[in-house]
Amino acid sequence: MTVEVQQDRLTEYISSIRPTYEAKLKELVDLPSVSMDPEHNKDIRRTAELAAALLKSLGATSEIIETKGQPVVIGEFKVGPDYPTVLVYNHLDVQPADINEWKSPPFEMKLEGDKYLGRGTTDDKGPALSVLYAAKYAFDQKIPVNIKFVWELEEEIGSPSFYDFLKANKDKLKTDSVVVSDTIWISKDQPAVSFGLRGLQPFLVQLTTGAKDVHSGETGGLARNPITEMASFIAECVDGKTGKVKIPGFYDKVREVDIDELEGYVKSGFDIEHFRTARDLHSLRTKDVRDAVNRVWTQPTFEVHGITGGYNGPGVKTIVPHKAEAKISMRLVPDQEPEEIIKLFTAFVKEKLPDAVVEAKSGLKPYLGPREGKFPDAARKAFQLAFNKEAVFVREGGSIGAVVTMQELLGAPIMFLGLSLPEHGYHAINENFDWGQASSGIKLFVHYFKLLSDIH
Amino acid sequence: MTVEVQQDRLTEYISSIRPTYEAKLKELVDLPSVSMDPEHNKDIRRTAELAAALLKSLGATSEIIETKGQPVVIGEFKVGPDYPTVLVYNHLDVQPADINEWKSPPFEMKLEGDKYLGRGTTDDKGPALSVLYAAKYAFDQKIPVNIKFVWELEEEIGSPSFYDFLKANKDKLKTDSVVVSDTIWISKDQPAVSFGLRGLQPFLVQLTTGAKDVHSGETGGLARNPITEMASFIAECVDGKTGKVKIPGFYDKVREVDIDELEGYVKSGFDIEHFRTARDLHSLRTKDVRDAVNRVWTQPTFEVHGITGGYNGPGVKTIVPHKAEAKISMRLVPDQEPEEIIKLFTAFVKEKLPDAVVEAKSGLKPYLGPREGKFPDAARKAFQLAFNKEAVFVREGGSIGAVVTMQELLGAPIMFLGLSLPEHGYHAINENFDWGQASSGIKLFVHYFKLLSDIH
Repeated sequence: MTVEVQQDRLTEYISSIRPTYEAKLKELVDLPSVSMDPEHNKDIRRTAELAAALLKSLGATSEIIETKGQPVVIGEFKVGPDYPTVLVYNHLDVQPADINEWKSPPFEMKLEGDKYLGRGTTDDKGPALSVLYAAKYAFDQKIPVNIKFVWELEEEIGSPSFYDFLKANKDKLKTDSVVVSDTIWISKDQPAVSFGLRGLQPFLVQLTTGAKDVHSGETGGLARNPITEMASFIAECVDGKTGKVKIPGFYDKVREVDIDELEGYVKSGFDIEHFRTARDLHSLRTKDVRDAVNRVWTQPTFEVHGITGGYNGPGVKTIVPHKAEAKISMRLVPDQEPEEIIKLFTAFVKEKLPDAVVEAKSGLKPYLGPREGKFPDAARKAFQLAFNKEAVFVREGGSIGAVVTMQELLGAPIMFLGLSLPEHGYHAINENFDWGQASSGIKLFVHYFKLLSDIH
Repeated sequence: MTVEVQQDRLTEYISSIRPTYEAKLKELVDLPSVSMDPEHNKDIRRTAELAAALLKSLGATSEIIETKGQPVVIGEFKVGPDYPTVLVYNHLDVQPADINEWKSPPFEMKLEGDKYLGRGTTDDKGPALSVLYAAKYAFDQKIPVNIKFVWELEEEIGSPSFYDFLKANKDKLKTDSVVVSDTIWISKDQPAVSFGLRGLQPFLVQLTTGAKDVHSGETGGLARNPITEMASFIAECVDGKTGKVKIPGFYDKVREVDIDELEGYVKSGFDIEHFRTARDLHSLRTKDVRDAVNRVWTQPTFEVHGITGGYNGPGVKTIVPHKAEAKISMRLVPDQEPEEIIKLFTAFVKEKLPDAVVEAKSGLKPYLGPREGKFPDAARKAFQLAFNKEAVFVREGGSIGAVVTMQELLGAPIMFLGLSLPEHGYHAINENFDWGQASSGIKLFVHYFKLLSDIH
């Protein structure tokens, strides 16, 4: 069974589907499925029901799977057991949005020409619908690939129920490969396929030297100061200026990045000045692009997010504080393992600050997928066919818990085919998406599904 | 004119005055003269009026002097221009008190046998009245010494108006010596005369690296982290564990303590374990008494009181903060000058954290008075006569702004004849004073005034 993608027919389909795409996107965006806020539990539930109904209306199976947290919607366009299967991952929950900061209400999608304005348009409801309508077309055109869907509703809170969900539904979700559409291009003109994510290991370090703050005149010099001890400790962990981690052994497991990969990053169009201004940062740790891409994509970090304890009001209150807590996390890269980092850091605290208490929060493993081979080649070809541009293969500095879980439990290669642009405002005010990316996105996925059907 | 102190008559006077002393102390304590809280401005005013009336009723002159802040009450028992003059300093404002924490209402003085319970009983209303009734006796007995009073009402907020007040009233307050009764003995059995105070120089150091917090996954490694930079900077300023200041030149002006003085401290009865437990501290920087007394009395410090910026809520929020502010102060010892320390530290910040902003708050000079000579000898003798105990000469770790001002503007030796005991609870809940200290205090001051009349 070989079915070619007929360009004219696909173009016609995409045009004809536009009003439906926009109406369904509006229905989804108008539901404030904010997973961070329990007040929106009902909206999350309605979103799940709407999504399940949509799958069914297009000819797919669908099911709402309950978890200990929010439900997960799954579905499938079934062709048959003899054909390859791809599992599509998107999420339909969104970040919070403050209506006062937006130029139009975030949960009433506004159509401005080709532009869709509203929370969730680009992250990740718009891309989810592009994949869905591509799958519907592929199914109708009898492209021989089974397309499964996993629509999560807890991605924005770190996927707390995803592992248990996937473990319980592993057989149902068996697949030859996974595609995730939830990443951002390097720039408007530069499609990017992420194939690596950093891991994360957070810690709380608390040092208590007394039961209450004391007077720095009466006691200063003799009383221990937990904040200066914590500062000295942090300075032993990391060089504040360069960010170089000083904990012995910390870099031991960091896999070397080959010259090829690195050259790819340097040529990826990563713009250091755009990176800086887009985030309102005054200066960065480097002005060298090679150094910069390494810093955010291939190197681990040691960050202090805050230090509590002592006096935090206006002016200077001359007390010696009785406790200090540092909120710390490290981004990890292959082959650093959260468990090993916990051991290493806990021992380091024990050595340097013997009476401090370390609490390790739950960590995320780093992820590295293939950038060469059949699936990456299919992704490259699909981008070329849909956007007439070559996609660069890059990494992401952040962590997506669900990805590592899928890698572990499904054992299938994962490809990141994202449609979002930096100017779409991920997690920001006035988030938006556009028909240009949505429509070419449909094309991208139709081609990708076709190419997958050939990898049998 | 030579008048001897007749022990019997003095003892009789002290007994007879007790009901008056207690009634007046209650009147004063029942007025919540909390200088930190503008809501108590009326109580401060009433306290000034009560104090001025009391001076007048005992035969002294009295006057309420207005300042840009709270008023100062001054008065005098005048003997004549040919006789020596002593100026007595006390303060009649008090620390705040939370009624829920106290065993009886803090602003309704309670008499429990020989004990007076209430805010201000020991700091500093009780001692102020002991000096007053001693002065009244000395005056009635025609002891040839002019006794001037300065009762401040802003001591607990750092004497912000005292310099201007004293400058404007310098001639009126001309004196041969000053006595301050606002310090604490080493222990119940060990009277102490403080002859040194540390100075203070507070700073705010602020480092801003962006306009808002950013995501530590997306930006971590490339974005600067102002908290880790601040921690590294603090670690360059001070060894967190030992407290040793590492800023080059910081100790240059520290005057060496002679072996005699140090031996005096070691023998002063300073109890390191009592120091620790009284303040609910888990451990101290040393277990050696010699080291301990040096640390609180003769050595300067570098403290961080708090670090703001970043995330301070529960758990770990993985942001890279965009600013950090360290609240810092240094206690100074002779001959360190606040102005020089400002220059030194500002230059150090400039060198180590070039884009940080340093703000120096108003500083206090360290103070060192005489511990040998006519006035210290008189103090020793008076303690011996009143308490039958030898007073030790020690320093104080804290700073009293008014003392440095008096030293500068009055140019007269200052002696600290305190009556408070550690168990009286300076600044603490259930503050108290007792008739034992109050009555022997009256004796102390009568003897001291008599001894001063001989130093002509």
